[in-house]
Amino acid sequence: MVQLYGDERLDYLLAEDLRIIQSPTVFSFSLDAVLLSRFAYMPIRKGKVIDLCTGNGIVPLILSTRTHVKITGVEIQERLYDMAKRSVQYNHLEEQIELIHGDLKDMPKRFGNDKFDVVTCNPPYFTTPVKDKQNVNEHFAIARHEILCSLEEVILACSELVKHGGKVSLVHRPGRFVDIVTLMRKYGIEPKRVQFVHPKLGKEANTLLIEGIKGGKADLKMLSPIYVYNEENEYSPEIRTILYGDRDSG
Amino acid sequence: MVQLYGDERLDYLLAEDLRIIQSPTVFSFSLDAVLLSRFAYMPIRKGKVIDLCTGNGIVPLILSTRTHVKITGVEIQERLYDMAKRSVQYNHLEEQIELIHGDLKDMPKRFGNDKFDVVTCNPPYFTTPVKDKQNVNEHFAIARHEILCSLEEVILACSELVKHGGKVSLVHRPGRFVDIVTLMRKYGIEPKRVQFVHPKLGKEANTLLIEGIKGGKADLKMLSPIYVYNEENEYSPEIRTILYGDRDSG
Repeated sequence: MVQLYGDERLDYLLAEDLRIIQSPTVFSFSLDAVLLSRFAYMPIRKGKVIDLCTGNGIVPLILSTRTHVKITGVEIQERLYDMAKRSVQYNHLEEQIELIHGDLKDMPKRFGNDKFDVVTCNPPYFTTPVKDKQNVNEHFAIARHEILCSLEEVILACSELVKHGGKVSLVHRPGRFVDIVTLMRKYGIEPKRVQFVHPKLGKEANTLLIEGIKGGKADLKMLSPIYVYNEENEYSPEIRTILYGDRDSG
Repeated sequence: MVQLYGDERLDYLLAEDLRIIQSPTVFSFSLDAVLLSRFAYMPIRKGKVIDLCTGNGIVPLILSTRTHVKITGVEIQERLYDMAKRSVQYNHLEEQIELIHGDLKDMPKRFGNDKFDVVTCNPPYFTTPVKDKQNVNEHFAIARHEILCSLEEVILACSELVKHGGKVSLVHRPGRFVDIVTLMRKYGIEPKRVQFVHPKLGKEANTLLIEGIKGGKADLKMLSPIYVYNEENEYSPEIRTILYGDRDSG
């Protein structure tokens, strides 16, 4: 049983056999968050993971199927934090997933530096525009625009929270790729593994997955890209597996 | 008629209907140089282009089929410069292609700053190793290792030579991507367009094509990647066209 408010729905995460609370007017997770949850390195039994900008908890929920370690999710918007919390309860994952209603910039003070083996983050993508161009829906605006935290603040927080030798995984837009690698280096995280996501073969990438290692040695691996759609505009087999699992989806 | 020395051959550039002098023991152009020549933005009728580390002149030769503007090629190894010069003569391109035997580091002094619309370069890929690990063949060693110029010196020279708003195109290994974008920004070139080359679908990229604009605004386009081989380990249609042109190669 779970309490749903307003237009909230209890959606399925088919591949993970979990359910998640979403709302079309408040927050729905994106494919990007799912891809991040599949891309990030995960320790299996030892270590600690923190997910910043966790939204409705999509990343911790998926990560819980890949690891036994403790996962902390941090969300600044109380409405989303509350959705995440109810989803975690519904899936009986309170033992593994801890949710914090707070500002990512305060987390290094709260936890101390060099405390996590992995930090993941699907931050807001857009630099703050002038007020009247911002999304009129405040929940969307905060989740999508760098209103409450800049890219630099995100990467600084990641760098402070992660252990030496630990990994930081982000998903973002390819247009910010140079900013991201520059800021990662500035804060001691060496970019090591990158994967681009293209809508289909022959199209420019619209999503970037990047993982860096704190104190790592310079050497970047460029993984084979992901294509979301095939020539018939259906999900590619790779994406079908990610979203629906290995089941036969006919 | 052309004078060939030692084991030199007069090879075909099929797609361009040109010929080029090569030698298996001194220098043969790589697919990377061909890809750079296809990737770089080229003005059609107005402007000036310079190719650094030009080797046997492969990049200026291919570029000559894409533009009417003057192209300068710079090569530090006299033996390669001489091959390039004879290839240019053989193809009757002396009016369009000028070759300089010299050090790229001296070119800004020679030409002055902010003089070219486009700078291209296929620099040595490997950081200088300890002496006994270097390629024993000196010609190969200089072409492949950062012996006579470092990546930073290459990017500095590119930045000095190119006009404000002009373009710099490089080909390199993906492992140096972060170094390249960091150095480009350091010297005022904003990375704008990137394309990775994968040996085949599902394999990590082994080549990086990158173009920046001097004084450009931050925003990177990640082009659809190039795959060199298909599943049967034959050249992909894209590479066949690049190497052999549109002719039916049965």
